[in-house]
Amino acid sequence: MLLATDSAAAVNAFDLASWSGARLQAVESALESWVRVDAGSELAHGARVQLVQAMRYAVLDGGKRLRPLLVLAACEAVGGDAKLALRPACATELIHAYSLVHDDMPCMDDDVLRRGKPTVHVQFGEAMALLAGDALQAMAFELLTPAEAPVPAAMQARWCRLLARAAGSAGMAGGQAIDLASVGRQISEAQLCSMHRLKTGALLQGSVMMGAACGRASAAQSAALSCYGAAIGLAFQVVDDILDVTADSSMLGKTAGKDAQAGKPTYVSILGLEPSRAYAQQLLHEALAALDRVALQDDRALRALADTVVNRFN
Amino acid sequence: MLLATDSAAAVNAFDLASWSGARLQAVESALESWVRVDAGSELAHGARVQLVQAMRYAVLDGGKRLRPLLVLAACEAVGGDAKLALRPACATELIHAYSLVHDDMPCMDDDVLRRGKPTVHVQFGEAMALLAGDALQAMAFELLTPAEAPVPAAMQARWCRLLARAAGSAGMAGGQAIDLASVGRQISEAQLCSMHRLKTGALLQGSVMMGAACGRASAAQSAALSCYGAAIGLAFQVVDDILDVTADSSMLGKTAGKDAQAGKPTYVSILGLEPSRAYAQQLLHEALAALDRVALQDDRALRALADTVVNRFN
Repeated sequence: MLLATDSAAAVNAFDLASWSGARLQAVESALESWVRVDAGSELAHGARVQLVQAMRYAVLDGGKRLRPLLVLAACEAVGGDAKLALRPACATELIHAYSLVHDDMPCMDDDVLRRGKPTVHVQFGEAMALLAGDALQAMAFELLTPAEAPVPAAMQARWCRLLARAAGSAGMAGGQAIDLASVGRQISEAQLCSMHRLKTGALLQGSVMMGAACGRASAAQSAALSCYGAAIGLAFQVVDDILDVTADSSMLGKTAGKDAQAGKPTYVSILGLEPSRAYAQQLLHEALAALDRVALQDDRALRALADTVVNRFN
Repeated sequence: MLLATDSAAAVNAFDLASWSGARLQAVESALESWVRVDAGSELAHGARVQLVQAMRYAVLDGGKRLRPLLVLAACEAVGGDAKLALRPACATELIHAYSLVHDDMPCMDDDVLRRGKPTVHVQFGEAMALLAGDALQAMAFELLTPAEAPVPAAMQARWCRLLARAAGSAGMAGGQAIDLASVGRQISEAQLCSMHRLKTGALLQGSVMMGAACGRASAAQSAALSCYGAAIGLAFQVVDDILDVTADSSMLGKTAGKDAQAGKPTYVSILGLEPSRAYAQQLLHEALAALDRVALQDDRALRALADTVVNRFN
């Protein structure tokens, strides 16, 4: 789980743990109820049940839920309706989960364990893992476009637009393509930055913007939240690179030192450890400075999440 | 390519070939312009270019474009704006293309040729094929939710809702999960029907409904078009099963007899050849009868397409 440092606790009287607790419960219960075989379908066939089991296995696994928390925090920052925000919150997590399922497959990173459990393709077979990822992506857009729930159509359309861009070739999938091509290569810091802005940053930033779309953000507020999202999106990856060399596997919950071993370029390999730490702090400063530029309803959770992203231990 | 039979030509004075010709040109040129590296992105990196090349290779390959034609025909049937319909028309084709890319992968059907060309994973590698499929799905939803184009938000949201359901676990991906589980098994006609209604039917029916969503369809018109879509969706697969045993590979453009060889249950293996032919004609009749029940602006293209789906030679 994410842990705030002492310095963060001193800076923020805001109690992130208790703020997150209530919201994580809502997210878990929403995911639990949404990712299931729909009662209305004509066929509850064994194979479809198995597909949905694979999807649930991928999603209901105790992840950090950073993306949902960013959606909910950004919604609160613009005074939006938190109930509406649960849909984009869960949708971002479905996209994140599908990307992990596909990433873990033998043709990509070939990982057999994730958070101490066998990965989806190990548990359900490769073909089912492929389908589960595909179906999770579709389900994200289904969650965003309820026919009955009282969500304004303009909000639904905007959510879909933000999520599609964040996930696609100009976002996460594009970043992964760059990642694939960069293994064992010398790349510049600018190229590394571009890769991470797409691969991890786009969906984190997209989560912030989807949360902001739950309320009536002004153009200035949107611009500030977009800067905030871009800064913490990149910071997340810089810190990942730092933890890959400084934390041990048991703290990380995944194999430490894996990037270096795989010949993947990282911030630490390009900038060095201390400059990477300084860069992460600089990005945190940028994120908070972006929030300082505008008046927001309540940006305490966004600030605390930014601090947590940068000062986390795993 | 789809070919109408003489009987169809006699029934329909409507000239499907010339109707399709103009529309296919619009679809091809829209796909050509939409599936590309967006000029606005910060990084035209080689790897992202390669991802988009793989996406273009998968989509711009001279497919029949049945789904786009159904979208456009349904739009015309309800008097909708054909220009608006180009987006859902292309989006359905992107979903279809992604499903073929993933289907062809070694962990699924392990096909090395499609329409006489090496499949995407053969040409670009498995990892890139996986990503290209993922990115094509995201792009479909991006096409449906333009920020600038004059498409009402309610229409965008409805398109996304229909497409997400048609593609996901209650649609295409669910049908493929059933397909996976059915290889080498005895299944009933009802189970085969359920599988195909999801695997192929859901997206064909969804295409019709997305076209109908481009205009102001009444509840009765929507219901009729939904029946039409369901009937031709299933008919498409029944005819596929018939052609798999009656056509030769050169006519099909793919390996004939493949399903039987793979131990996949088909309509022909369960019902027999002649009863399958009769069933296809019955479904055609159902599709046309559904259209008879309501007044539509111009349903000639829908009728001709239904006839073509059932009486095609490949």
